[in-house]
This record gives sequence, structure tokens and C-alpha cells, in this order.
Amino acid sequence: MHAKAAPRPRAKSAVPQTRDPSATRAAILRAATDEFSQHGLGGARVDRIAEKADINKRMLYYYFGNKEDLFLAVLEQSYRDIRDAERALNLSQTDPVEGIRKLVAFTWNYYLEHPEFLHLLNSENLHRAEHLKRSHEIRAMHSPFVAMIDDLLERGRRSGVFRAGVDPVQLYISIASLSYFYLSNRYTLSTIFGRELLAPRERAERLGHMTDLVLGYLIRN
Amino acid sequence: MHAKAAPRPRAKSAVPQTRDPSATRAAILRAATDEFSQHGLGGARVDRIAEKADINKRMLYYYFGNKEDLFLAVLEQSYRDIRDAERALNLSQTDPVEGIRKLVAFTWNYYLEHPEFLHLLNSENLHRAEHLKRSHEIRAMHSPFVAMIDDLLERGRRSGVFRAGVDPVQLYISIASLSYFYLSNRYTLSTIFGRELLAPRERAERLGHMTDLVLGYLIRN
Repeated sequence: MHAKAAPRPRAKSAVPQTRDPSATRAAILRAATDEFSQHGLGGARVDRIAEKADINKRMLYYYFGNKEDLFLAVLEQSYRDIRDAERALNLSQTDPVEGIRKLVAFTWNYYLEHPEFLHLLNSENLHRAEHLKRSHEIRAMHSPFVAMIDDLLERGRRSGVFRAGVDPVQLYISIASLSYFYLSNRYTLSTIFGRELLAPRERAERLGHMTDLVLGYLIRN
Repeated sequence: MHAKAAPRPRAKSAVPQTRDPSATRAAILRAATDEFSQHGLGGARVDRIAEKADINKRMLYYYFGNKEDLFLAVLEQSYRDIRDAERALNLSQTDPVEGIRKLVAFTWNYYLEHPEFLHLLNSENLHRAEHLKRSHEIRAMHSPFVAMIDDLLERGRRSGVFRAGVDPVQLYISIASLSYFYLSNRYTLSTIFGRELLAPRERAERLGHMTDLVLGYLIRN
């Protein structure tokens, strides 16, 4: 009876109702994370993301707006993932020395296991964080994180173990630096120093050195 | 009389004799450093390098082989420059605590003043150091540098000021990390933490923190 009617647009916009929207969002974000991590923002192609996520491109735009918006969503999700994982360390219930030790080891292992996170941050820094600057969530996501480190430092100071006057943001940037640079620059560093920076023994030595460096500084003379 | 003769190839290959070859090499390396730093290895164009160096492309190839060879020459020169500048600090004649302080400050200021060095290292790490691995000089350039840091550490240890058992390569990677990551990731870090990482006060605080961190670790309890 409707043979002559043109296909109704509803037929396409109805697709979200046939799939779980949060599963669809997650599938798109996973595919986009891979694509942006491998090709950078400039080289990434929305076609490939849609294909990997098994969704049509129109639907992808329906969920995430344009490519730049999708890149921001990927960045926000990546930060959310690492900050959630840190919160799960439950550092507010941990002895301060042990807490710092756990934070250093966590950061190291997380970066080792999530090279895509480092690639995404490199891309976003090439773009001078123009996407993150538009985020409504990113600052709020980091306030409790800084407060958590500050609490560790303050408890350590009050118990007479840690030195006073340590800025939690400076300290965290340093902890991140020590792992990040070692990994992001491992090819040049391995070559100029003639070492295999990711050999098992070298990895263990790096984690030991970073832990000693940070705790050696924090623990009072 | 020679009106009918074709321009002789000699006319072009004779150019090196009309210019100081070492000045020509230096001009090419400067132009290539700019170009590779701005566009990466993939995006760099030998045409633009030749133009900036005010030399023809054939001559450029005469001096440096192909684009990949030129990139390696730029990397080698960049490492030579920073290692020469460090040698000029004369750390082997310096009190160990003062020597480490100078090395941390030097690294920080050098990276601040030479963003092109960071860009080149980023590019070469994207290429898994495939150029540096072909270098005949890079390892030899770094042995005296590691020996210099080892000497600082050893003199500090013998005088009872520094802890024992510090690996000079690990320590140097850490010193480099602290400045490098702060600068290379300053856009994302400024955004997530809501600070202007390159504001004058923030710079001074960063140098103070890095110095305290490294010396706080090295100096014996």
C-alpha cells in the first residue's frame, strides 16, 4: 500500500532505538581512540572510525557532532579512564609513603599499557590543546585528583615523614614526566645510550629509580 | 665564440669552490633544522631547505646525500650542540651539589630556548630512531657525557654528600624528563590544571621544584 512512498527519513534516525545508545557511544569512542592514536587528528578519517565501530557515518555525527568534537570526546574519555583508575587505588586510605609508591608504579604501568593515551596527548599538544580548552568537564575532573595528592602530602607532612611545602601539581607533573619521557623518547634514548630501555631488567630498574627519586625527595632528612 | 655550446655542467658543480664549504654546510644544516622542526620528516621539503639555504638542490645533495641522510645530519648536529654546551659548563671542576644544580638549570633553559630540538626528537621517535641507529658518531658523543655525570656522582659520594648506587644514565634521563615533558605537554597540562605553565612565576617555581627534587634525592639523609 505504501509502495510509492519514498523511504521515510525516520527509517534512519530510528536506528539508535535498535541499539543500546551507550554501547554505541562506547563502540564509537573505542574506534575513534584507535584511529586518532594511530593517525593523529589530521590523518584520522571519520569513514574508518564509522567502519570500525560498525555504524554509518551519519549516525556517528548524530552522536558526536563533527570530527573535532569526536576528538575532544576521545580526550575526555581518556582522561576519565586514567583518573577513574587512580581513584580506584584508594590512596586516601593508604599510608602516605605507600601511597606515593603506588601512584608512581600505577603511572608507569598505565603508560606502558596505554600507548594510545600518550599518542593522543602528543596530538593534542601539537594542536595547543585547542580541543581540551573547550571542554566543560576537564578542569572539574582534575580538582579531586589534585586534592587526593595534596591529602597524601599533607598526611605525610603531619606525621613528620614528608617535607613541607610540596606543590601537588608540580609533584604530579614530575611523576608523570619520569615515566612519560622515558617511554615517548625510548627510541632515541636507547640509541644514544646503547641500552634497550624496555628490556625487562631495564624496566624494573626504571621503576626502582623513579620511586627512589620521588620518595628520596619527599622523605625528610 | 661559445654561443652555441650548451651550459657546461661544471658551471654548477664548481659552485662549492666559490663558497666556503663549511659555511655552506652550516647554512644547509640551519635551514634543514628549521624545516624538519616545523614540518617533521614527512612534511619537510628539500626544495624549501635549498631555498632557505640559498643553494641549489643538486648542491644540497652533493653535501648531504638524500633527505634521510640530511635528517640524520641535523640530528647529529643537534646532539653535538647540546653536548658541547654541557661540556662548556665545566662540571668536572665544579662542586658536586653545584654541578647538579647547574645541569638541571642548563637542561631547563636549553629546552626552553631550543624548541626545535624537542620537535626533532619527537619526529625521530615517531620513526623509532631509525636514522640515529645508522649514526657512527652518536654513541661516542655520549660516552664522555655519561662519564661526566658519573664523575659528579662519584665525587659527591666520596665526600659523603650524595647517596651511593645512582646510575648516571637513569639520573640524566630523569633530569631531562622533568623539563622535557613539562614543556612538550604544557598545553594539555596548563588546561587540565588551570595554570599558565610558562608564566614567569610558574617557570621559576618549576626550576626550583626540579632542583629540589633531584638534590633532595641525591643528598644523603
